[in-house]
This record gives sequence, structure tokens and C-alpha cells, in this order.
Amino acid sequence: MNALPIAAVILAAGKGTRMKSDVHKVLHPVAGRPMLLHLVDSVSDLSPARTVVVVGAAREQVEAAVAPLDIAVAHQAEQLGTGHAVAQAEEALGDFDGDVLILYGDVPLVSPETMRRMIDRLHDDDAPAAVVLGFRPADPAAYGRVIVEPGTDRIARMVEFKDATPEERAETLCNSGLMAARARDLFALLARVGNDNAAGEYYLPDIVMLAAGEGRASAVIETDAQEVAGVNSRAELAAVEADWQQRRRAQVMADGVTLVAPETVWFAHDTALGRDVTIEPNVVFGSGVAVGDGAVIRAFSHIEGATIGEQAEVGPYARLRPGAELARRAKVGNFVEVKKARLGEGAKASHLTYLGDATVGAGANIGAGTITCNYDGFLKYRTEIGADAFIGSNSALVAPVAIGAGAIVAAGSVVTRDVEADALTLARGAQETKPGWAKRFRARMAERKAAKKG
Amino acid sequence: MNALPIAAVILAAGKGTRMKSDVHKVLHPVAGRPMLLHLVDSVSDLSPARTVVVVGAAREQVEAAVAPLDIAVAHQAEQLGTGHAVAQAEEALGDFDGDVLILYGDVPLVSPETMRRMIDRLHDDDAPAAVVLGFRPADPAAYGRVIVEPGTDRIARMVEFKDATPEERAETLCNSGLMAARARDLFALLARVGNDNAAGEYYLPDIVMLAAGEGRASAVIETDAQEVAGVNSRAELAAVEADWQQRRRAQVMADGVTLVAPETVWFAHDTALGRDVTIEPNVVFGSGVAVGDGAVIRAFSHIEGATIGEQAEVGPYARLRPGAELARRAKVGNFVEVKKARLGEGAKASHLTYLGDATVGAGANIGAGTITCNYDGFLKYRTEIGADAFIGSNSALVAPVAIGAGAIVAAGSVVTRDVEADALTLARGAQETKPGWAKRFRARMAERKAAKKG
Amino acid sequence: MNALPIAAVILAAGKGTRMKSDVHKVLHPVAGRPMLLHLVDSVSDLSPARTVVVVGAAREQVEAAVAPLDIAVAHQAEQLGTGHAVAQAEEALGDFDGDVLILYGDVPLVSPETMRRMIDRLHDDDAPAAVVLGFRPADPAAYGRVIVEPGTDRIARMVEFKDATPEERAETLCNSGLMAARARDLFALLARVGNDNAAGEYYLPDIVMLAAGEGRASAVIETDAQEVAGVNSRAELAAVEADWQQRRRAQVMADGVTLVAPETVWFAHDTALGRDVTIEPNVVFGSGVAVGDGAVIRAFSHIEGATIGEQAEVGPYARLRPGAELARRAKVGNFVEVKKARLGEGAKASHLTYLGDATVGAGANIGAGTITCNYDGFLKYRTEIGADAFIGSNSALVAPVAIGAGAIVAAGSVVTRDVEADALTLARGAQETKPGWAKRFRARMAERKAAKKG
Repeated sequence: MNALPIAAVILAAGKGTRMKSDVHKVLHPVAGRPMLLHLVDSVSDLSPARTVVVVGAAREQVEAAVAPLDIAVAHQAEQLGTGHAVAQAEEALGDFDGDVLILYGDVPLVSPETMRRMIDRLHDDDAPAAVVLGFRPADPAAYGRVIVEPGTDRIARMVEFKDATPEERAETLCNSGLMAARARDLFALLARVGNDNAAGEYYLPDIVMLAAGEGRASAVIETDAQEVAGVNSRAELAAVEADWQQRRRAQVMADGVTLVAPETVWFAHDTALGRDVTIEPNVVFGSGVAVGDGAVIRAFSHIEGATIGEQAEVGPYARLRPGAELARRAKVGNFVEVKKARLGEGAKASHLTYLGDATVGAGANIGAGTITCNYDGFLKYRTEIGADAFIGSNSALVAPVAIGAGAIVAAGSVVTRDVEADALTLARGAQETKPGWAKRFRARMAERKAAKKG
Repeated sequence: MNALPIAAVILAAGKGTRMKSDVHKVLHPVAGRPMLLHLVDSVSDLSPARTVVVVGAAREQVEAAVAPLDIAVAHQAEQLGTGHAVAQAEEALGDFDGDVLILYGDVPLVSPETMRRMIDRLHDDDAPAAVVLGFRPADPAAYGRVIVEPGTDRIARMVEFKDATPEERAETLCNSGLMAARARDLFALLARVGNDNAAGEYYLPDIVMLAAGEGRASAVIETDAQEVAGVNSRAELAAVEADWQQRRRAQVMADGVTLVAPETVWFAHDTALGRDVTIEPNVVFGSGVAVGDGAVIRAFSHIEGATIGEQAEVGPYARLRPGAELARRAKVGNFVEVKKARLGEGAKASHLTYLGDATVGAGANIGAGTITCNYDGFLKYRTEIGADAFIGSNSALVAPVAIGAGAIVAAGSVVTRDVEADALTLARGAQETKPGWAKRFRARMAERKAAKKG
Repeated sequence: MNALPIAAVILAAGKGTRMKSDVHKVLHPVAGRPMLLHLVDSVSDLSPARTVVVVGAAREQVEAAVAPLDIAVAHQAEQLGTGHAVAQAEEALGDFDGDVLILYGDVPLVSPETMRRMIDRLHDDDAPAAVVLGFRPADPAAYGRVIVEPGTDRIARMVEFKDATPEERAETLCNSGLMAARARDLFALLARVGNDNAAGEYYLPDIVMLAAGEGRASAVIETDAQEVAGVNSRAELAAVEADWQQRRRAQVMADGVTLVAPETVWFAHDTALGRDVTIEPNVVFGSGVAVGDGAVIRAFSHIEGATIGEQAEVGPYARLRPGAELARRAKVGNFVEVKKARLGEGAKASHLTYLGDATVGAGANIGAGTITCNYDGFLKYRTEIGADAFIGSNSALVAPVAIGAGAIVAAGSVVTRDVEADALTLARGAQETKPGWAKRFRARMAERKAAKKG
């Protein structure tokens, strides 16, 4: 097999009216990442020389999404068919003379392995003009069919469902639309594709028959239907998401993670989990999470942008936001939110706490109801808590503030000034009791109620 | 087709022993509304002249449920069969001479469209004596069969499963029990139904054969099995709920709502959602919720009786209770409860907060851990927070109290008196620190532990 | 049938490499209890005279797990096959001369009824040498087959899949591995089992053919495939968990509990639920929970080691930990954690509260944001709250402390000293207000921002 440079052309001109959305279809997320970026990421495994996205409707949205990336954008002003769309990429590819992979922004889950197989097939000895990616759906329905020469992978015909004979419709190998071809072949053939059909469109698959007319066969390789599932509606988006999640759950279990109820755990595209991690029912992972060996994530936790150390315990009902870092054996319990805060080894925040912009030393204990007051309406400030410090329950730590190692904050304190190591600080009102007051109050309220009724 | 007035007779005499419940079967809720009221609501689409509910066991529960509605109640003292039950409605219908629709309180999901089709069929030129609603279940099992004259919808025979021949059992069209007939026909025929059968009961379907004996055919129309699913046990209740939810999820996705994990979102009967709303996994809607375009409902939110504005952000772990109103771009975050409170445009309550009986002005920021103290054990009081006010974290606002526009409440304050606009208020204890105290305390506790062991 | 004493031999020598875990396979939990203990519990219904667990890899983990129980441990130093494993139990059984049931630690859900059927079959008049438990999986795949003499339950042959003829493979009755035999028969036969096979292992099923060679037939009884599902991977563990949960959900619904979304409620092995209990979506039960008649468990609740009285209301988002006791009509609401605390009849803790090591009298009301400060870093202390007391919102109760019956704690108080009955106590700072301060602050911050940019 020959190693030519590779270019990817991703078609993303259709905004997707059936989505009923103001957001471009290819920017709807799967596993927390826009569909288009799933493709871009998978393509990157092939180290493409160039990637071109063909945009049309709502192009500015797509352009903004790929702006930070090394991706060219080609514009398809009118939607004149898939062949026409691919042709728009020619200019952006310039003098590129390698292999071109044609992908669809709304077919997001194609694996790098499948992409590689398509490219590799191009370089087999029979040198096919193009390689088509086929699949066999449970219900072939109205998909275009790929008819091969019996016993081979050589394509005899590509036929749209509506033009297919009953015999052709009985074939179950369908055209996914994905294709690979050498750039010079691709654009030469595309230049000859016509639009003499009911829709007046230029169809990409026509290049297969054009090449055949010149005596050059094309080949089909197969993949499973889920990999080429397309998204044209929110229901299809949910189906692709569900499929992605199901595969990831199976993978993490195979890697040694316990999921008590796999169907209730949602991963993001980049969730990284250690061995012997246990995840209880109903946990949602956003992007950017890494979990160390032996950690336990209890039910109803919501975790994004967080690093969780070995043997750490999270939840139930823990919310870890970006910048949360839990060292080994740290514990974040119920109704606790952690944001841009690090908990040292064995540190604990077990109940009803907000830790934002904070550092908590190893072994420190944060009492129930503790709040770091990190915002004054304009700026955020940091709270530093030393190792083995003890923050009494229902305390407010008004940042910027530092609590020294081993210091104790008395319960219910509002701490506004730094506390030195090993000191006790109290900041609360004196208690005053009025005997019998409650009884008199109740009598008064009862009278008032009676008066209202009377 | 003829437009006679319509009456609905809803059979609800059986309490449902297999439910093992003290609550009458027809009052168990589906999508947050008693089954009986689903039917009443669907019937109302046909603008019925009268609705009669036939009650028996636990009648007082059903009577209480329909008391606020324009619905008559008929009493079936003994449970002598469906024919007998319908006959009890005759007196309540008085001189009504239109079409009667016979429904079952435990078959709650029949659509208005199907009801309308039944009535309309009565008025076709062949003027059937009755219209029976048939269905084809996946497993016809022991259902009564409807045998039609070949190639027509005319009923040749209605046959109970136990009386059916093998040929009849091979038929798959089953009797749902629902029926439509003109009042005068219905009651004339019912008067002639006998109880000469093993159970000694008066069977409603017998009117079909009685009419046939007079040369008047009846007709059957079909619907899908899910629509006529009945509820005799908690498992069947759960199945009907699941079916309802699945259909509603599909509908909201088709309307332009993203459900990341559709199977984990539960709607109520009246949930209203705008376009481009995104709903993360695990969200529960109670009754009375409306969500504006582009709002995001994050995971683990529980929402009832709330109005959520455009682009608002709710959750994760937000609990909105009746009377919660979020204006455009308002934000309610994790572990926040809102009850009878309005947040103005862009106002935020992001963490660990209780807002009850309150008004929060546009742009105001409610710090983490803020509690509106709205109850003194007898009465509820209001908290008014002005636009752009800043409530420092862990504050208690003791209602009735007003915080002026642009005012600042210092973190950890217990506010009992009104604060004027643009003022700062502090209400917290002074901080006192005792150097070395924590160290000595630890030494003392260690000694005590050692003493206990020694 | 004869009633000999029974012994159980549970094979648990394989640690389970496909689990990719440091925890022994049989100690992974299903429904919150290690698989091995499910078996031990089921066996206990048969009042066994002895139970022997055969351990091998990671034996110290298994030994620690069964140490508190009346269970003998036998050691299989080398893993030489199932026959060899069972033989290791002989010494531990000593002079035991009853019936032996052979079970597998990774086949946890075999019911006592099935175990009893196996033993009973041994004592039928034809006195089989052994009783094999067979099943018919949806996909018989590579399971060993049990070939019976036509029309009987007598075993003609046991055949490993790889040695099976096409005809034998067409049989669908498979060998679960579970077996019953009288001790004297079992060990006499095992002594004659050889290891002349590809793996060089001693196979337990070989005893069937050895007995047949002596003219003693063995019998097979059947059970459903789910009951003998084995666990070799985390995915299989999740499948067994799912099956267990599904069966339990069906059972509780049949017993009169409403599950709005059954597939989202997870029970523990010992969860006990009263009649007319309603459970909303997404509730997780840990071990040791009992719920009284008519209680309502709302969505997103997490409950372990708790007793919930009749008509009590829990959640949404309630977390009950071990030692939580709710009396009749008590209420624990959103974002409330209860640990080792009792709430009396009708007592309420509705919002954002931590109750630990506390007693709350009947009718008491715990305001939003209340925290019992029960820990000083060394010891836990108790909070006692009297009947009908009213704890104002956002209060901290610093234990040990007692609030008398009918007493009122003012909102925002930090209570460190006992409060007598019917008294009011206040413990908060005085409120001081600085007019115009907020306006000046905003101006200053705006200047600073401008300066930074400039």
C-alpha cells in the first residue's frame, strides 16, 4: 500500500431544517462535543495534510467553530447536490495531489479505523477509482443501493432507491455517502457529472459510473450501520448520542470500571477513568474529567473539568465544576459544589458546601454549610485553607482570606481576616435568650388568627 | 355526517383490587394527572353536552375528584357487568338524545381523534347500531374477539375468548370495550340484554348481537393497542406512564427540543417547551411548567408550577416549585430551591439558596448559601430585592424585608431591617482570634483519647 | 422424600481476571451485597448443616468476608478444574453424610426454591446419583450440553461444547454447573475422575458418566437462564444487577407500590416497602431501609439505613443516611441530609439542612439552611430539639446543645447554649447600614477596571 498525503472534505452546507433549531446541525453536540468536531478529531488520527469544510447555510456558525483549528472553509452558495458540494473544495485543496476522504458533518461517529480502511483500499493492486463506504441497515428502506459484481467488492452499479428495480431493492448493501478517491481522479470525474435528473442536482455517486465507463472499477468496503448513522432530527441526534454512550459504557466496563446501572451514566467524549473505579446510578460527566484508580463516584453526581485522585470519594449529589481537583482520598459529599478549587490528600467537604477559588490543605475538614465568599460582584478572590485546618459548620469565609494550617474556625463564623496557624477564630454574635417569649408569641399569633376569622 | 350532541359515559365502578391500593384505580396519576381526568380532558375536545361517571366502590373518592367539574355521577350499587354499569347512566342523561360514547376510567389514553372517529362512523350512510373500538394486540391472549364480515368493517360476531372456537381465536381483532351508539338505541338495546351466562352479568357487547337480530349491523373501527391499554395493576400503570412519556418525548424532539437522554426526562400532562430548549439527562417536570425558547435545563432538575424565560438557565440540581418565575436570561443553579418567587431578567441565584415568597430585581446577584427566612411558624412574609442588588454569600434575609436597588448585603449577614438603595449593610459578629488555642485543644483531645484507651 | 442434612459447597477459587479488579470477583456487589453473600443467604433458607467456601486466588479477601459467618473455608492451591475444587471441600465436611449442593460464587442469583428442588429430586424413588441444574439460554453458544434420554429427565450424556457432535449441539439444554449429590457418592465418584483431557483438568460433570458406568443414572432439572447467569466481567455484573432490579421492581409493584418510572429506581437486597408507597423517578436505596404505608419518596432521593414512617414525605433530593428515622408524617425535603437523627411525628426539615446526631421532637420545624454542628474534629455530639420547637432559617446549632419544647431560635443564630422550653433565643450580629457605600464601591471598581484596560 502506498502512503500518499490525505485530505478530508467534510460536507456541512445543510443547516438541517428538521432539527428546528437556530443552531447549525453539525454544531449540535454528541457526548458534549459538536458533531463536526467529532469528525475533525477522528480525521486527525490520519494526520491529514488538509481538511476542508464545505459550508452553506448559517456558514458563519460553522466558520466560528472551526476558526481556532487548522481547517479551510469552502463555500457552497447554492445547494446543488453532493457532487457540487465536494467540487467547491477543489480550490481550497489547491495543488493537493493525495487521497481525499469525503465525510459528512452530520455523520459524526465514523471511526479513524474505518477512514483508514477506505484510504488503504484505494492503494490495493487493482487501484479502484473510488472507494465507497457501504453498510447494511436493519431496514434498508429508501437508501441508495450498492450493487457489487458477485463474489467481489467491485461496484457494478450505484442506484438511488427510487430508480432501483425490485431485484436491486432486494440487495441490502447501502451507500453511506462516504467516499475516498485520489484528488486528481475525484475532481476530473466531478467535472463530468451532470445534473440531468429530477432534482437537477449533481450527485457524488455518479463518479463511480463515470469511472466505470472509462474501464476503472470502484470498490466498496462495509461497516456497521451504527457507525454511519446520520443526524437529521433531534430524535436521530438522541439516537446517535445513545449509541455513543452505549459503546463507551461497554468499553469502560471492559477496562475494569463498575457501572451499577450502565444505562444511567453519561460520559463526555474525553472522560478518562482508572481501574476499579465504581460509578453508582445517575452520574453525568461533562468534558475534561479524569478519575484515578479506585475512586468512587456516588449517585447523582455531575462532574465537568475535574481531576479526581485515587481512592477519592465523590457524591452523592456532588457537583464538580471546571478546575476542581481532588487529591488522593479526598472526599466531596452531598450538595457540595467545587469550582477552581483543590482539595489536598484526605481533605473532606462532606455536606452543603460551596468551595470556589480555593485551596484546601491535606487532611483539612470543611464543615457542613461552609461557603467561600469568593465574589464581590466584580472580581473573584481566593480562599487558602491550610493542612489539617478545621472549618466549623455554617461558616462563611470572606475571600481573600487565609486560614492557617491546623487552625480552627468556630461554627457559624463569618471570617473576614486571616487566621494564623493553630489559632482558633470566632466571628459570631452573642447569644441572648428571652424566657417565655415563644409562648407569648404563639398566643399572640393565635389571637390574631382568631380575630381574622371572627 | 350528522352533528348530534355528544354525551360521554365513563365507567369507574371498579376500585381495582389488583392495584392493592386505598386509592381508587381511576385516580392513580399518569403524567401527574389522575387517569380519569385524562379522559375528561380528551372528551372535552368533543364539547360533550353531558358527561356521566358511573361509580361504585370507593365512590366518594371519585365524586370528590369530579366535584369541581361539570360532570354527573351515577351509582352502580352492585357490580353486575358492563351493560348494567352503562344502564345506570340513563337517568343522569335524562332526555339526552344524541350520541353516547362509552369509555373506561382505567383506559386513560384514548385520543380525542379516536373518539371523534367513533362518533363519525355512527353517522355514515349505513347507520350502524353501534361502533366498537377494536385493536390488534401483540398477544391477543384472552381478549374478546371481533369477527367482521370479510372485506368490511361490519361486525358478524362479538365473542368472549372463552366461548370462541379455534377459528375465532385465530382472529386478531380484539374488543377494547369502548363503544359509541345513539342514546335511544343504546338504552333500548341494554334493556333487552340478559344475564344468562356463567358470571350472571349483563355484558355491554351483547347489544351488538341484539341489534343484529333486528337487522341492524354494527361497525368496528381500529386503533393501535397502546391507545387502549388498560390499567389493572401498578405494573400496567407504569407501562401506560412509560408509553405516554415516550410519545411526548418524541413529540417535543420533533418540535425542536434537544433531549440528551430522552428516556430520562419525565414530562407532565401540560408541560410547554419552546424551540431550541436543551434538556440534560434526568429532569422531572411536574404540572404547570412553561419553558421559553433557548432555555437550558441542566441535569437533575425538578420543576413544577414554574415559568422559565427565554435563554434562562436552570440547574443542575435546581428545584423550582409552584410560583417560581424566571425572566429572560435568569439563572438558578445547583441546590437552589425557588418557591413563589420571581427572578428578573439576568438575575442569578447560582448555589445553595432558598428563595421563597420573594421578588428579585433584574441583574441582582444572590450569593451562595442565601436563605430567605419567610416563615415564622404561622405566617409567610415577603422578601423584596431590588435590581442589581448584591446579596453576599451565606446571608439570611429575615422577611418581611426589602433590599433596595443596587444595595449590597455583606457576606454572612442576618438582615432583619430594610436596606435602602445603594447602601451597604453588615449584620454579623466581630471576629476574635485566640492564638495557639487549636493546638492546645488538639493536645487535650489526644490526652482524653489516650486516657480512655489506657 | 427423605430429609437428610444438607451441606453447601461454594466454589470461589477464581479471582476473575476479566473483571480487571483488585477485588475478588465473588465480592463484587449485586443490589448492595457481595455476590457470595447472596448465595450464603439463599442457602440459609435450607438450614444447611455446613457451608464450605473453596478459595484460591486472593483467598484472604474471601476469608475476611466470611469470617463473621459460620462458614468453613477450604483451599484450592492450584486451579485444576471444578472436580478438583469440589474435592478440596471434603476435609472440611469431615464425617458429613447428607446431601451436598455445589454452587458457584459467581452465579449469585440461584433461588432457595431451585436449590430445594435439586435436593428433593435426589430423594425421588429412582434415587439419581446426582442432580444437574440445566437451563436453556437464548443463545446456547458454547455451553456444555445435557443430553437426556428422550421423554425423561435422566441424563444420557454430558458433553462439552467443543466435543459435541452437530446433533448434540442442536440440543438446547445446557449445563449450569450447579449440582447436587449425596456426600458419600460425590466424593467416591470424584476420587475416580481423571484429568486426561486437553486442559489437564478434573471436571465435575465427569461424575455423571462415571455413575452411569456403574448403572446409576443422574437427573437434570431445569431453571430459567437468568437464575443461573454467571459473572465474569463488569458487563455481566451489570447485567445480573439489572436482572435483579427488574425482578424486584415487578415484585414491589405487585405488592402495591407505585413506581412512576420503574427502570429508574434501584433497590438494595433488603429494602422493605409498605402499601401505597409512591416512588418518583430516580431513587437509590442502599441497605437497611424500611418504608411505611403511604409514604412518598420523591425524585432524586438517596436512602440507606433509614426507617421512614407511614405517610412520611421524603425528597426530592433527600439524602437519608444510616440511623435516619422519620416518624409518621415527618417530612425531609430538598437538599437535606439526615444521619443518626430521629424526626418525630409531623416534624419537618424541608430545605438545605444537615441533621446529624440529633433528635427532633414531634411537630418541630427546622428552617431552611439549618446545620447541626455535631463534630469538633475529634468527637461527635448530640443536638436535642424539643416538640414543636421552631428553628429559624440559616441557624447553626453547636452541639452538644438542647432546644426546649416550643422554643424559638431566631433566624441566622449560632446557638451554643441550651435554650429552655418556650423561650426565644437570638445569637446574631447587630445590623449596621452605610448609606451610599455600594454606589461608591461600584464607582471605585469601575475606575479600577478602566485603569487596567487603559
